[in-house]
Amino acid sequence: MKEIKGGITAAKGFKAASCAAGIKYKDRTDMAMVYSEKEAVCAGTFTTNRVKAACVKWDMLVREKGVAQAIVVNSGIANACTGKEGFDACESVAKAVSDELNVDSDKVIVASTGVIGMQLPVDKLVAGVRTMAGNLDDSIEAGTASSKAIMTTDTVNKEIAVSIEIDGKEVIIGGMCKGSGMIHPNMCTMLAFLGSDVAITKELLQEAVSEVVNDTFNMITVDGDTSTNDTFMLLANGMSKASITSKGKDYDVFRDALMYVCRNLAMRMAADGEGATRLFEAEVVNAKCKEDARTLSKAIVGSSLSKAAIFGRDANFGRFLCAMGYSGAEFDEADVELYFVSKAGRLKVFDHGVPLEFDEEEAVRIMSEDAVTVYVNMNEGEEQATAWGCDLTYDYVKINADYRS
Amino acid sequence: MKEIKGGITAAKGFKAASCAAGIKYKDRTDMAMVYSEKEAVCAGTFTTNRVKAACVKWDMLVREKGVAQAIVVNSGIANACTGKEGFDACESVAKAVSDELNVDSDKVIVASTGVIGMQLPVDKLVAGVRTMAGNLDDSIEAGTASSKAIMTTDTVNKEIAVSIEIDGKEVIIGGMCKGSGMIHPNMCTMLAFLGSDVAITKELLQEAVSEVVNDTFNMITVDGDTSTNDTFMLLANGMSKASITSKGKDYDVFRDALMYVCRNLAMRMAADGEGATRLFEAEVVNAKCKEDARTLSKAIVGSSLSKAAIFGRDANFGRFLCAMGYSGAEFDEADVELYFVSKAGRLKVFDHGVPLEFDEEEAVRIMSEDAVTVYVNMNEGEEQATAWGCDLTYDYVKINADYRS
Repeated sequence: MKEIKGGITAAKGFKAASCAAGIKYKDRTDMAMVYSEKEAVCAGTFTTNRVKAACVKWDMLVREKGVAQAIVVNSGIANACTGKEGFDACESVAKAVSDELNVDSDKVIVASTGVIGMQLPVDKLVAGVRTMAGNLDDSIEAGTASSKAIMTTDTVNKEIAVSIEIDGKEVIIGGMCKGSGMIHPNMCTMLAFLGSDVAITKELLQEAVSEVVNDTFNMITVDGDTSTNDTFMLLANGMSKASITSKGKDYDVFRDALMYVCRNLAMRMAADGEGATRLFEAEVVNAKCKEDARTLSKAIVGSSLSKAAIFGRDANFGRFLCAMGYSGAEFDEADVELYFVSKAGRLKVFDHGVPLEFDEEEAVRIMSEDAVTVYVNMNEGEEQATAWGCDLTYDYVKINADYRS
Repeated sequence: MKEIKGGITAAKGFKAASCAAGIKYKDRTDMAMVYSEKEAVCAGTFTTNRVKAACVKWDMLVREKGVAQAIVVNSGIANACTGKEGFDACESVAKAVSDELNVDSDKVIVASTGVIGMQLPVDKLVAGVRTMAGNLDDSIEAGTASSKAIMTTDTVNKEIAVSIEIDGKEVIIGGMCKGSGMIHPNMCTMLAFLGSDVAITKELLQEAVSEVVNDTFNMITVDGDTSTNDTFMLLANGMSKASITSKGKDYDVFRDALMYVCRNLAMRMAADGEGATRLFEAEVVNAKCKEDARTLSKAIVGSSLSKAAIFGRDANFGRFLCAMGYSGAEFDEADVELYFVSKAGRLKVFDHGVPLEFDEEEAVRIMSEDAVTVYVNMNEGEEQATAWGCDLTYDYVKINADYRS
């Protein structure tokens, strides 16, 4: 596997476009479209929030059939808590795509991100669809522009593409995501869209997606708030002619590449959490079971107090142990070892129930890096998990104290 | 029932003392002692955090026997994650009380609050016990001084006392609490100690405590972090001669007064959350069941995004609905009505699944009060619950980015 340039348009047959539809932001693009030349099988996961945005409800119907050919995304307004009018808006947008691109409207994925509880300006979105349909382009630049159009409080756009070989042919997976606040996915992240030119059944694709999302997007948190709009969608259009029809070596190669892509996007999403100054990783090893390892690592990166300590470069390790304690996982602190790890070094601070003396200056040095890991050895079993988050900063408060204006 | 002056020393037979033992803070008191002239039955609840402070483990043994006569509390160091040395420290402190006051050491409650993962300076604590044993006093001022000694990042001390009549005799319940950060009690709050001169069995006392704590201290959250040290203890020494031996009218009078005392302390604890500028209350009515009402109201006040919106006086009601959606409770947003309420007025913003147009200036005016309520009518049943929290501010981050220094 090798990483290549670009994002979703790197995969064969995928085109993208973006435009400034004037939905809520001024002087920036706020709509993106992705189009596959051929119909693609699709697999995805959605928010577990009981309050689901209208577009999530729409996309769940698309996923059920498992075939898609276009994605339309807007930023600015989330189209959540908008009742029947919100669902009708999804239908109007899909219908516009259908008219422009001769795609069945039930094969159009729609997604929104932004303020909850506000109706979409449907006319603007339909006009945006028309503009974008005329500008679809398979260049890397078009993919990048579309990844920028779906940003809200994100500070950087996030895309990636990899190339693998399956069945003697090159297969590409490319994708983009956005997400900065209200990030505590419990299915997937805020919004992530991937395209691949592999040929695969929708059942195998869904299986790979579910497995990968659990270990990547579902292991990040920014603020513990599970959005109403979380959507992960992968379209596979088969244009590489490389085909996966059953589990085995080829499936594994594809799944591993998908894991790489999703982990990369998920970590960048965590690092770009609202107001974040650094990536905060928790690696829990030798846990009794996989579920415990996941629970413990997510509790560590999810704790406000832990996140504030990471911001302050304060090796206040008791907060991490405290978070593990209320996570719900069973363990005995007398078994636990805890380290702070970064590029600058590795420092043990807690050993089998006993706090260690350590050099505070060394701790600050380690915690000053862009990425800081809390490494916890449970000494109880053989399972491990990694979760990603970010620090809690003044800017998180600033961004969210008046997000609507 | 009437509210009277003072705190824990208002109840007959309770004395208090405090001192500056120099544990961690400079130029302030950091130890408190409460002493009952007669042995008291005791009831309490503790943190559900799997990582329990040494003092919690100690107090659980005291509660099992159900008899106590003294409480010793220190601030500065939490004595959590301290292994055998930490438990031995509890024993040394209890032993010192036993020596000074002729109280069985297994009837001494010890509690700590402060940094986790640091050993207590036992010699200083023992010296503090000796000082305080000589200064015990039943004045209101002594009670107030002890409530100040147990503060950490609290900005105000919190105590209350009420007088009720049972069996023709005056019964008093007085108490104090502290708590500002790491507040998401799942048994009780950080630290709360109450004394009463009622005569009651330990079984009835525990029953009243469990019921009341569930509706009061367990309904507040500051940051979602359940501390390793949460302790609620109520001592009843019988010195009023008023006796409760079974459920009935007298028990109800006592339980209701206890509810009043605990709700008052809990709300003040939430309002004094780290960095808080206002009390944030969520009242959920007409829910399907009590458990749902609790879950929904706690999710609303627990959401970082909701808390930031309260700080910014931003009527971004979608965040509250979003939090309800991921709370785990089942409901249909099409049934829900949502209002912002404060002394300045009442504003409906969401009605049966549909966002309403509202006057932003009026919203800001309502949300600028010291206490803001999000009032949610589920229109599904008849149960209700109220939860309390506070806003998320720059100061929360500031306080916690370097709490140890």
